[in-house]
Amino acid sequence: MALKVGIIGAGRIGRVHADTLVTRVPSAEVVVIADIFEESAKSSSEQYGIPEYMTNPSALIQRDDIDVVVICSSTDTHTQFIIESAQAGKQIFCEKPIAHDLGTIDEALKVVEDTGVKLQIGFNRRFDANHMRLKQAIENGEIGDPHTMTIISRDPAPPPIEYIKVSGGLMMDMMIHDFDMCRFLLGEVEEVYAMGDVKVDPAIGEAGDIDTAKVMLKFENGVIGTIENSRQAVYGYDQRVEVFGSGGSASTGNWHANAVTISDGNSVRRDKPMHFFMDRYIDSYANEMIAFIDAIENDKDVSVIGNDGRVPVVMAMAGMLSIKENRPVKLSEIG
Amino acid sequence: MALKVGIIGAGRIGRVHADTLVTRVPSAEVVVIADIFEESAKSSSEQYGIPEYMTNPSALIQRDDIDVVVICSSTDTHTQFIIESAQAGKQIFCEKPIAHDLGTIDEALKVVEDTGVKLQIGFNRRFDANHMRLKQAIENGEIGDPHTMTIISRDPAPPPIEYIKVSGGLMMDMMIHDFDMCRFLLGEVEEVYAMGDVKVDPAIGEAGDIDTAKVMLKFENGVIGTIENSRQAVYGYDQRVEVFGSGGSASTGNWHANAVTISDGNSVRRDKPMHFFMDRYIDSYANEMIAFIDAIENDKDVSVIGNDGRVPVVMAMAGMLSIKENRPVKLSEIG
Amino acid sequence: MALKVGIIGAGRIGRVHADTLVTRVPSAEVVVIADIFEESAKSSSEQYGIPEYMTNPSALIQRDDIDVVVICSSTDTHTQFIIESAQAGKQIFCEKPIAHDLGTIDEALKVVEDTGVKLQIGFNRRFDANHMRLKQAIENGEIGDPHTMTIISRDPAPPPIEYIKVSGGLMMDMMIHDFDMCRFLLGEVEEVYAMGDVKVDPAIGEAGDIDTAKVMLKFENGVIGTIENSRQAVYGYDQRVEVFGSGGSASTGNWHANAVTISDGNSVRRDKPMHFFMDRYIDSYANEMIAFIDAIENDKDVSVIGNDGRVPVVMAMAGMLSIKENRPVKLSEIG
Amino acid sequence: MALKVGIIGAGRIGRVHADTLVTRVPSAEVVVIADIFEESAKSSSEQYGIPEYMTNPSALIQRDDIDVVVICSSTDTHTQFIIESAQAGKQIFCEKPIAHDLGTIDEALKVVEDTGVKLQIGFNRRFDANHMRLKQAIENGEIGDPHTMTIISRDPAPPPIEYIKVSGGLMMDMMIHDFDMCRFLLGEVEEVYAMGDVKVDPAIGEAGDIDTAKVMLKFENGVIGTIENSRQAVYGYDQRVEVFGSGGSASTGNWHANAVTISDGNSVRRDKPMHFFMDRYIDSYANEMIAFIDAIENDKDVSVIGNDGRVPVVMAMAGMLSIKENRPVKLSEIG
Repeated sequence: MALKVGIIGAGRIGRVHADTLVTRVPSAEVVVIADIFEESAKSSSEQYGIPEYMTNPSALIQRDDIDVVVICSSTDTHTQFIIESAQAGKQIFCEKPIAHDLGTIDEALKVVEDTGVKLQIGFNRRFDANHMRLKQAIENGEIGDPHTMTIISRDPAPPPIEYIKVSGGLMMDMMIHDFDMCRFLLGEVEEVYAMGDVKVDPAIGEAGDIDTAKVMLKFENGVIGTIENSRQAVYGYDQRVEVFGSGGSASTGNWHANAVTISDGNSVRRDKPMHFFMDRYIDSYANEMIAFIDAIENDKDVSVIGNDGRVPVVMAMAGMLSIKENRPVKLSEIG
Repeated sequence: MALKVGIIGAGRIGRVHADTLVTRVPSAEVVVIADIFEESAKSSSEQYGIPEYMTNPSALIQRDDIDVVVICSSTDTHTQFIIESAQAGKQIFCEKPIAHDLGTIDEALKVVEDTGVKLQIGFNRRFDANHMRLKQAIENGEIGDPHTMTIISRDPAPPPIEYIKVSGGLMMDMMIHDFDMCRFLLGEVEEVYAMGDVKVDPAIGEAGDIDTAKVMLKFENGVIGTIENSRQAVYGYDQRVEVFGSGGSASTGNWHANAVTISDGNSVRRDKPMHFFMDRYIDSYANEMIAFIDAIENDKDVSVIGNDGRVPVVMAMAGMLSIKENRPVKLSEIG
Repeated sequence: MALKVGIIGAGRIGRVHADTLVTRVPSAEVVVIADIFEESAKSSSEQYGIPEYMTNPSALIQRDDIDVVVICSSTDTHTQFIIESAQAGKQIFCEKPIAHDLGTIDEALKVVEDTGVKLQIGFNRRFDANHMRLKQAIENGEIGDPHTMTIISRDPAPPPIEYIKVSGGLMMDMMIHDFDMCRFLLGEVEEVYAMGDVKVDPAIGEAGDIDTAKVMLKFENGVIGTIENSRQAVYGYDQRVEVFGSGGSASTGNWHANAVTISDGNSVRRDKPMHFFMDRYIDSYANEMIAFIDAIENDKDVSVIGNDGRVPVVMAMAGMLSIKENRPVKLSEIG
Repeated sequence: MALKVGIIGAGRIGRVHADTLVTRVPSAEVVVIADIFEESAKSSSEQYGIPEYMTNPSALIQRDDIDVVVICSSTDTHTQFIIESAQAGKQIFCEKPIAHDLGTIDEALKVVEDTGVKLQIGFNRRFDANHMRLKQAIENGEIGDPHTMTIISRDPAPPPIEYIKVSGGLMMDMMIHDFDMCRFLLGEVEEVYAMGDVKVDPAIGEAGDIDTAKVMLKFENGVIGTIENSRQAVYGYDQRVEVFGSGGSASTGNWHANAVTISDGNSVRRDKPMHFFMDRYIDSYANEMIAFIDAIENDKDVSVIGNDGRVPVVMAMAGMLSIKENRPVKLSEIG
């Protein structure tokens, strides 16, 4: 019998998960979606054929007919809903980041640990075919011992300024995915150095954030890496990772909606890459949910655990401190 | 309310359609699947969560709770089920080819016309993102007036010899998709010349078929084209089309399961392209079903009509005659 | 000591050879260039630092200080200069085609045979890095037994109509390179079928020629091939060959002057491929001259012999007859 | 009349310049080559057809029949020969780096300035077709305002340890090209931060050098860049640059000796990229010499001036200091 799922948050990412759970994860059944904005809850329930909607997430958590809670609400509510869900004995999937401060995160992870429920963090990119193949190349020894890593990760356009203001900043909101990718591929990072600036939109600077950054990382295993983020690549979503080692190099490319090349009097060209995460990573969202539901159904370990949600927050904090003080920062300084 | 669909045929392609209808076409509801082999009907109903299964396709057609019949049975039964469905007032989706002889096809199309039901033929490749983009490039004038066309279409491995024997042959079974692609992109063909041979497996020759062929085509608009088919490309499904014109060239590439490039001491390499039609064309199956269901729901013209199922059969016959007599054959010779 | 070379013909191709001989073939010394147009002879001698120029090619051939004659004059003079050079005991390099009729070719090849001088025909594409790698792939068994072949060969723009009129036609002038490529890669051809048309410029049709053609070929070893030619690809020189076999496929791509990709708000694009043969094949001209001079110096067999100049003429004739009579033509019909 | 050139140094790079000057720069005439090892001087003069050789570079500089001195000797001799050449009124081309310390460099540049001779530094990569196209893309505004830059530059194999010991280290010997590329594309750099390690060969570490490094750079115009160097990419010479801006991204790819793709039962693959600088950058060496000789002949400014040789040395020093002290270093700290 299908696991009964309740979704909290009917915004952009909540709808992605609703869509993939409804259409591509047959062993889960979404029975209710909650959003504090009734209109949003209602419209998403209609769009995805979810039987019920609610405006009280905490009440959703308490329902007896729910086995699993998928938390897609705003970041500041994550730990509250994690704690409530864990205490109600629900299995939990929570979007990244868990929270913007370590105290809150540690409190929530403690409750999860004490109650023994499963918690999977929404680092979907681990489930992307490119990144899985990259990890396989490393693990298979196809590139020998890793020496360096380069991540280039650019969004097609910045989010609204109102979102920027509560996002925790570029490193906490956007680069956090790349910090997770570092750990997924190559293990723990020891020290970071970062440069960041406002280049895309002055309003982002006025909101106290940056929109362009490079971070250099020293991994515990000696690998030297760099991450680049920009909030705006006019040609679309640019998501590339390269790992170079003693035996060679493995690098991912972007996905395009079609594989058509047009040669004309001006150039040899392709259409731009897929526009954003809902196109590029749609399969990875399905894959992470399938993996999560499978772990619940078959009582297996989830593949992205609480600590995987905590460490990238530490890395983001270290990166921000590095920019502020213009010096390399060890992760051990942060906690 | 969702359209009620019955599927006839629980073989490979029937299961593709069941899967896409169940998971990706929300406005359709598959209520029953029929197959003369009970085990196949039963297992597919379980696999895709279809409430009922039957072993009598004709009885499925007569059910009052069915609006739409999707015919995926063996080719020799297509026209019978088309006629029965049309007479029962059902909307029809039928796999290609309609039949291997024109008399039978014409009889069935006459009934469809007389009863006024809709009939869409399963030329799914028209709904592939690459082919749609190619058609758009032609229609937008991105390559000017088309002059030539080249299709290379290779399967990863031949089907079982038992299937070969009833398939109608390479041109009727496999190249028929490419004949349709010609018409989709560039309109009607006037004359063909073909060379064919047995290169992959002598057993295919013993079964009276060929496994490798090239066909040259003269289109009514003057375009000169070639199609190449092979039953076996060891590197996987090879599906490419190029249209060249006064303003440039547009060509499709293959799809790969990942976009990872590995450079090592031997080469710069990628994993092989997607293995076969269920990977490469899975979206096109969903797209054709969405388009079909949409045409039924909203009483629009279907996009691949009965005649689109008839003409490629004529082209296949012309191609086979050309090989037999080693001469160019006009389609008007066939009928 | 360097071989003393005299060049006959200071047109486009004569200058290519002068340039490569002067700058890239240290073991040859160009001592004189002849052209019936004095201005052309003079300007080329100045441009390439050739000590002398003449207006009488036959007199050049008779000079005692010349070991090697490189014939780059108009096609109708090739056999005369081959015969005179052979009778004067000179080693000969002659541009393609030897002549437009077989009687004349056979007469010249007889004199070459009787005098025992070496004659290399200017099928430079055999010496292109791509085509050499393709041949190596076939010979190494990297693609198993060859089954099919596809050549796409398009010029950036047609030559002047005056040239078209004396060129022998598309198949004799342009496709002859592709006919040679067929033989270089896969051996002798048995039968051809061709379609051709005027699509680029009506003036080409008025001159009695075609500008667009496809030819299907049956090789003696059973391979089925197609060649496509167009006199005008607006995006530049398009030169691609694919050989497909039981073990895989090997295909060449075009060369670009740079390897820069630009992604912007419209597309992901590269600059057009190299414009024409003087860019794309410049190394192959040097390679063929180096190989020729090496064969002379070290008394080795030349790699492109007289018969290699004869057979493509037969193929071109068969192709033209096929278009005229709209039927497959065996090469044995031609002679 | 051709400019008379004397080459000092008949090692690897001296021979590259001899070859390109002899075969590809018609307006220059190499009359003599000097090397303190007679055998090397002699063999190179024979190989490239240079009339004379010497073992005393200073004597070469004093010859009246020499207009131009091309300095390709070991780095520790560069400034001596620059000064002697300038004082002898010769025009000078000097390989990078000018020297490993700024005092020596400044002394030499002072003499050049005082004597008014021209001095071009051998940053050949500026003359590579890819890098020129990249600069053009930036200057044309094809990518808008530059925001970030990424250089990946890997050699196929480390030089001999004996060379490493006198090379000045990875940053002075290898990354110096990339430092120059930064300035060529995007102007002056303000501050750098670097991480480096020994990953390829412990003997390199024992020699006091590193073999793997990443450097982050802040440009005066606000661009944030990274450079990665490795002494060993097993797949060959990896030379890529990407500049990203408000209007898009421009990136260079590697060059391959052929454009053949082979698809087989294992992968879709190409041969490895060109192996090293003598293949990949051979045209750039010719281009820089043509530009240099042209500047001399026509009394134009040379395109890579003395200061272009000085600043990358400052950058290398800053990078080395950054690694030593694990902190960002401003170029103004160095001098």
